[in-house]
Amino acid sequence: MPEGQLFTVVEEGSVTSPIGFSAGGLHCGLKKTDRHDLGAIVCEVPAAAAAVYTTNVFQAAPIKVTRESIASSGKLRAVIVNSGNANACTGAQGEADAYTMRNAFADKIGVAHDEVAVASTGVIGELLKMDRVLGGIEKLPAVLEAGEQGAEDFSQAILTTDLVKKTIGVELTIDGKKVRIGGAAKGSGMIHPNMATMLGFVTTDASIEPDALQKLLRQVTDLSFNMITVDGDTSTNDMLVAMASGLAGNQTLTESHPAWEAFKAALTHVCVHLAKAIARDGEGATKLVEVRVEGAVSDESAQAIAKTIIGSSLVKSAVFGADANWGRIIAAVGRAGQPVNPDTVDIALGDIVTLRQSSPVAFDEDAALDYLKGDTVVISVQLHMNQGKAVAWGCDLTYDYVRINAAYRT
Amino acid sequence: MPEGQLFTVVEEGSVTSPIGFSAGGLHCGLKKTDRHDLGAIVCEVPAAAAAVYTTNVFQAAPIKVTRESIASSGKLRAVIVNSGNANACTGAQGEADAYTMRNAFADKIGVAHDEVAVASTGVIGELLKMDRVLGGIEKLPAVLEAGEQGAEDFSQAILTTDLVKKTIGVELTIDGKKVRIGGAAKGSGMIHPNMATMLGFVTTDASIEPDALQKLLRQVTDLSFNMITVDGDTSTNDMLVAMASGLAGNQTLTESHPAWEAFKAALTHVCVHLAKAIARDGEGATKLVEVRVEGAVSDESAQAIAKTIIGSSLVKSAVFGADANWGRIIAAVGRAGQPVNPDTVDIALGDIVTLRQSSPVAFDEDAALDYLKGDTVVISVQLHMNQGKAVAWGCDLTYDYVRINAAYRT
Repeated sequence: MPEGQLFTVVEEGSVTSPIGFSAGGLHCGLKKTDRHDLGAIVCEVPAAAAAVYTTNVFQAAPIKVTRESIASSGKLRAVIVNSGNANACTGAQGEADAYTMRNAFADKIGVAHDEVAVASTGVIGELLKMDRVLGGIEKLPAVLEAGEQGAEDFSQAILTTDLVKKTIGVELTIDGKKVRIGGAAKGSGMIHPNMATMLGFVTTDASIEPDALQKLLRQVTDLSFNMITVDGDTSTNDMLVAMASGLAGNQTLTESHPAWEAFKAALTHVCVHLAKAIARDGEGATKLVEVRVEGAVSDESAQAIAKTIIGSSLVKSAVFGADANWGRIIAAVGRAGQPVNPDTVDIALGDIVTLRQSSPVAFDEDAALDYLKGDTVVISVQLHMNQGKAVAWGCDLTYDYVRINAAYRT
Repeated sequence: MPEGQLFTVVEEGSVTSPIGFSAGGLHCGLKKTDRHDLGAIVCEVPAAAAAVYTTNVFQAAPIKVTRESIASSGKLRAVIVNSGNANACTGAQGEADAYTMRNAFADKIGVAHDEVAVASTGVIGELLKMDRVLGGIEKLPAVLEAGEQGAEDFSQAILTTDLVKKTIGVELTIDGKKVRIGGAAKGSGMIHPNMATMLGFVTTDASIEPDALQKLLRQVTDLSFNMITVDGDTSTNDMLVAMASGLAGNQTLTESHPAWEAFKAALTHVCVHLAKAIARDGEGATKLVEVRVEGAVSDESAQAIAKTIIGSSLVKSAVFGADANWGRIIAAVGRAGQPVNPDTVDIALGDIVTLRQSSPVAFDEDAALDYLKGDTVVISVQLHMNQGKAVAWGCDLTYDYVRINAAYRT
């Protein structure tokens, strides 16, 4: 590891990189094509577990079941995931189905029911075809493996209309032991277009207490998954689950452990990587947009402003059109509901300054056009008020976004 | 007037329908085409005046000038408007230009400087071509007239990429006197795509105190212009101005006048009509969407939920695609940040119930498709919590919205 670096990124790293984890996926029949639609991650020991969930009032059945599992002991042995059907707004039957799915898989791999988490993504308001789910669960243990293929199959099984799988692995050293963190996620899209669901799965072989992992996961989520926007809609099924096997053999991590900041940095890298991958693969997106806000009155204020900019349909359309339309950016800053001095705002697109101290700066339109035609666009806003800062990620608004989401469900 | 009706709608009614008002418009050279880009409404007596403005932190120069004019006496003799350039983010020179525009027109028609309001819409960050504005002001008084042509020319002069002009007139009887209210507005669109600006102008010959008019205008705005969304972006230039000549001869209206509710109903009709016209003519829109929320804990809560639904890109795309995708509607309800009982929600598209007590209801997909293909779609949400209700208006999200807003500025 190069000097001064807290962790390294592992090529082809995934949820099976950390010691103790196997994964797999298969097609059980929930998707109309033959693509994988059922997958699982299994840990050979009870893993310290943590999760964060959607804030939507209408939380899907699997979220209720997963909450209950994690609350009962703070440990998980497995998480089972289906795509093609969100099992959301499905009432008492949907809840019973989520329990059945959890319990059947737990029985099949010989662990307690409350050691299994459940996640679902896909169309809402339709009951799961449980014969197909249970048929898939029968075959799932046979395809689980600790190697790359297992992680690959799992990463495919959680996708809906995502164009690419989203995985990452990092390594760091704690107490002289090598510790690994792996992650997989899915973003916005679905077989029957319905709603974007974000699912994220993080594994690590670090030893860490569940409470410390939960606290850390929430902090890291606020800097990663909670800073991305594809279309401003919050799914009923969003879920991020972390499992720590402890098999790396380090001394159990707490906030006072000297490697805490390194572990936090590594976990943050994993989550930011997955979050950016989701943003870049947003429905219809042609590019990643990164918004950096600095000089706000607080980090929270900077976050609100960054999210308002990244969520603006006008800004997103302008980026798609490679239009250096800073007027839309300052208008978004101005309606974010945050303290802003209207006379001290700087705006830049990449290195191209378009506004300084709230006054337009003449810039090279051709250079701006070239920059905006790239596959990543960075919008920087400096408010010159205080030290608050934030980074948010999103994507452009394109014809394909409308096409994908206007398509009739059947 | 039919029995029980508080007011009647006048065919071809406009801002010149009320006694005392003339209007006009012409091309002065701010737009690249030969379409009108400078207009004015003039009242032959000092009119009681009121206005509401954008909440954007970055308020354009004309808003500052108009605020000052109305604050000085509560009266206006005229409002002058240009399209093609918003005179926003233009610094001290922009402010000086807005004053020059106001004062030149005031001098030309022989009224005090602070009896004139100024509004602008169009590209931001560019200085007004004042030679053209001043040249137009020289010719403007000659084209002002109290008839239909004056109102027509004014209604055209305030448009940017709007496809249709937006005008209305209503009549009612107060104290045995006929009282008229007229209105004109522009919505989202621009020559150099930049940002949506809503401008609204209301005239009446009712006698009403400025303070009462201001209070009423704010109430009515909350039920009309503040309940529409095209893309969730708030312009730096939004402005609604009302002028009351008093020439109808009624006893001056206050909240205790027996006709107060009738006048309020008539003014509400005018503003709702213009707001709906703006929503229907939103950039790229193919249809008007109306969202009715009932049974919320309060009217404010219902407003927040209705605006979240009408602002959802996923809901808007589904309406464009005639997709009866109620899952996106309930997801929007659930993320609005308002008190909602997740078990008691009903949703209907027109008369077609899709969700009752939060459980899916089987419905005729063909009938839903037919309904959603119409030019107006009504989404009804009943929360069964209390008596709070609200109505919001918007439009669908289409390929043309993206095309219009992705176009390069030059």
